Amino acid sequence: MTIGIGLLGLGTVGAGVAEILANPEGRHPLVAELALRRVAVRNLERPRAAPVAAELLTTQAEAVVDDPAVDIVVEVLGGLEPARSLILRAIAAGKPVVTANKAVIARHGEEIAAAAAAAGVYVLLEAAVGGGIPIIEPLKQSLGANRIERVSGIINGTTNYILSRMAAEGADYGAVLADAQRLGYAEADPAADVEGADAADKIAILTGLAYGGSVPRQAIPTEGIDRLDARDVAYADKLGYVVKLLAVAQRIDSEPDGDKASGDPDALLLDVRVHPTLLPRSHPLAGVNGVFNAILVEGDPVGQVMFYGPGAGAGPTASAVVADILNIAGIRQATLPAGPGGGPVGLDPLLAAGSWRRCRLIDGALTTHRNYVRLRTSDEAGVIGRIGTCFGEAGVSIQSIVQFEAHNEAAEIVVITHEVLEERFRQALDAIAALPEVQGVAACLRTL
Amino acid sequence: MTIGIGLLGLGTVGAGVAEILANPEGRHPLVAELALRRVAVRNLERPRAAPVAAELLTTQAEAVVDDPAVDIVVEVLGGLEPARSLILRAIAAGKPVVTANKAVIARHGEEIAAAAAAAGVYVLLEAAVGGGIPIIEPLKQSLGANRIERVSGIINGTTNYILSRMAAEGADYGAVLADAQRLGYAEADPAADVEGADAADKIAILTGLAYGGSVPRQAIPTEGIDRLDARDVAYADKLGYVVKLLAVAQRIDSEPDGDKASGDPDALLLDVRVHPTLLPRSHPLAGVNGVFNAILVEGDPVGQVMFYGPGAGAGPTASAVVADILNIAGIRQATLPAGPGGGPVGLDPLLAAGSWRRCRLIDGALTTHRNYVRLRTSDEAGVIGRIGTCFGEAGVSIQSIVQFEAHNEAAEIVVITHEVLEERFRQALDAIAALPEVQGVAACLRTL
Repeated sequence: MTIGIGLLGLGTVGAGVAEILANPEGRHPLVAELALRRVAVRNLERPRAAPVAAELLTTQAEAVVDDPAVDIVVEVLGGLEPARSLILRAIAAGKPVVTANKAVIARHGEEIAAAAAAAGVYVLLEAAVGGGIPIIEPLKQSLGANRIERVSGIINGTTNYILSRMAAEGADYGAVLADAQRLGYAEADPAADVEGADAADKIAILTGLAYGGSVPRQAIPTEGIDRLDARDVAYADKLGYVVKLLAVAQRIDSEPDGDKASGDPDALLLDVRVHPTLLPRSHPLAGVNGVFNAILVEGDPVGQVMFYGPGAGAGPTASAVVADILNIAGIRQATLPAGPGGGPVGLDPLLAAGSWRRCRLIDGALTTHRNYVRLRTSDEAGVIGRIGTCFGEAGVSIQSIVQFEAHNEAAEIVVITHEVLEERFRQALDAIAALPEVQGVAACLRTL
Repeated sequence: MTIGIGLLGLGTVGAGVAEILANPEGRHPLVAELALRRVAVRNLERPRAAPVAAELLTTQAEAVVDDPAVDIVVEVLGGLEPARSLILRAIAAGKPVVTANKAVIARHGEEIAAAAAAAGVYVLLEAAVGGGIPIIEPLKQSLGANRIERVSGIINGTTNYILSRMAAEGADYGAVLADAQRLGYAEADPAADVEGADAADKIAILTGLAYGGSVPRQAIPTEGIDRLDARDVAYADKLGYVVKLLAVAQRIDSEPDGDKASGDPDALLLDVRVHPTLLPRSHPLAGVNGVFNAILVEGDPVGQVMFYGPGAGAGPTASAVVADILNIAGIRQATLPAGPGGGPVGLDPLLAAGSWRRCRLIDGALTTHRNYVRLRTSDEAGVIGRIGTCFGEAGVSIQSIVQFEAHNEAAEIVVITHEVLEERFRQALDAIAALPEVQGVAACLRTL
């Protein structure tokens, strides 16, 4: 039984998919039953290394979706439009969709999921998070018995590459970014990566899968690494930490008092965020370096499980895309009717991954966490004491307070707090900033 | 739609499964549709903490399988019999099976798979390898686009706990084993763990899934950690390595000449083995400590992906068992007929994971790998030179040769070779053992 594949896009990932389909030998035998039927490209004339017959190419993306020989539509265009419209068009035609497009799923996921559920087709997206790492499928099909406590991940390879080199070389952000751009690890316009939007798209997707309900993508507090100072990476190292751009989604079981008013008391309260974070060197994610990604899932009763691998690249991403195609082909085989007139009649609820719970974001001021703060102060006796007193008066308990360097009558004092309510921590910081000996709060980072 | 679960065994894992089924809240909504119908135990009188109504218990395991209210049979008895017979009985009755039993699958997997294929039912076994770590499902459903090059894993928690403590404390194997037994990390009879049989069972299972064909379990070369000397752990550390009990399955693409005679030239040639192995400290598996497990899968085009988590324990293992139950329940929902008279008509070939290729084991003498050798020698000038010459004459290239200690006219010399044919390495070792200055080959370990 041959299954016709329509490919929207023949860039890096699309070419990787075509490569796998053209060379099924040694892979799962189902791969040999997939046949590329039509491929949408922007420019027919561009020379291509991908093993795709010229007559399959078209500039009419709709024609790929509409082609009766196309059973599964694979969207690897990226971006919001026309990706969103083409995905919806495929769903409307009753065709399952495989996409690698985190942006469109993070922003239009609910619309797409609703359309897919109504039409009874699958929209699979293993490649949208973590490149080649199986993480979507395991969250949907292997961890369903768990109450997920937390999902935390290094899910942007560009920033992890930059941070790894900043840590290893003591180099500045700007210099490493320029080098990463030269080497192809960062794009010419790196904003989506370094400002955290890409990681926020991905944690939005993981949140929906882990908790069975979505949170508004735009409401996810997001901080990138673009203002990170090499000094903080170095000080963190001296204190036994590494700095990583972490995307976190965490359930909040005991609702803070002040949050009761914000409505929908039945919704699961979640703390979802993206920011540079200090990880103790013993943390499972601390050793993830370079362009590698890793996602740590904590749940009851499984405990901690981690998924590690290449977060991007043609081959790994194509591996994930074809995995999704195979899953659709596999379940199609299971639902094939014995005789004529039958047909697939339902969706596997795990694979379809509909939402089954309402979720909402906690007010940031009511979250509790540990903090790293770097203060610029004058180099006077008693400064540490006065800073400690400010924290103490605000009820902020301190794990360590260290003076790092002092010259020209200036010093740098680094404080790591215990877990504390954000509101209270901000009060303490305001009081500290008002001290005459304190010239400024130079950096403030979350700490695990 | 309620799905009836029959549980064979109410030990640690069985109780963990009952616990999840009794508390579906906050888990995937499909969990709430699973109902425990009947539970086989050995002794009805034994007091139990598991949330199971007394009237569900029976000592007649067959009655659980045969109960018409039981839709899915969950085998968590362990051991070969009666597990094998009960699994086959369930299959014959057309009931899907979920098992956590690596021994029965490693030894009777082909018989069970053939019966399952004939009856058109699933036999799922996520819990059989890696405890709570999703590894079976990802191998079956997320990595099918790949040509798998190698699967290497730390898949026995007991030995990894012992090795981690030997490395951290410089302690002897015997002392740590005794302590591990006291703490419940090793069984009273630790043979299956420390001699490598448990890891061999598991790599046999992973091999079948990764390569689509099985190898005879008894033919897998297996060496445990029971003869490992603390000195070798310490010397490895000094040279930048950690010692782990590694289970490896690797495809051999270029067939060595001497192996042509061994028949079935069309079968995929595999090197499958279990043994203590030196890993460079930078290797992704090197940081896996304590009772944690991790499996590294290397494939084309995905590259390296690693799965890490708790390799045993009631909660993690139950998480994996219930994941399998959910998968069966989910696909059941997808194949439910719209009208009466229909029914599931096929199996998802990915989930069913039948074999699709013949595999065979390479002759051990024809494998190539790096080696660590510890020699006891007399403390004389020129010994290192003569040892080096022996290796050189046999064509064995050396990476490092270090004399470690010398007292009482005795020395210890540690050699790490480059990659070399096992046959040739053995020839060199024979020549070295015959040197008058060499008192003996004290240890010989594989090195990555």
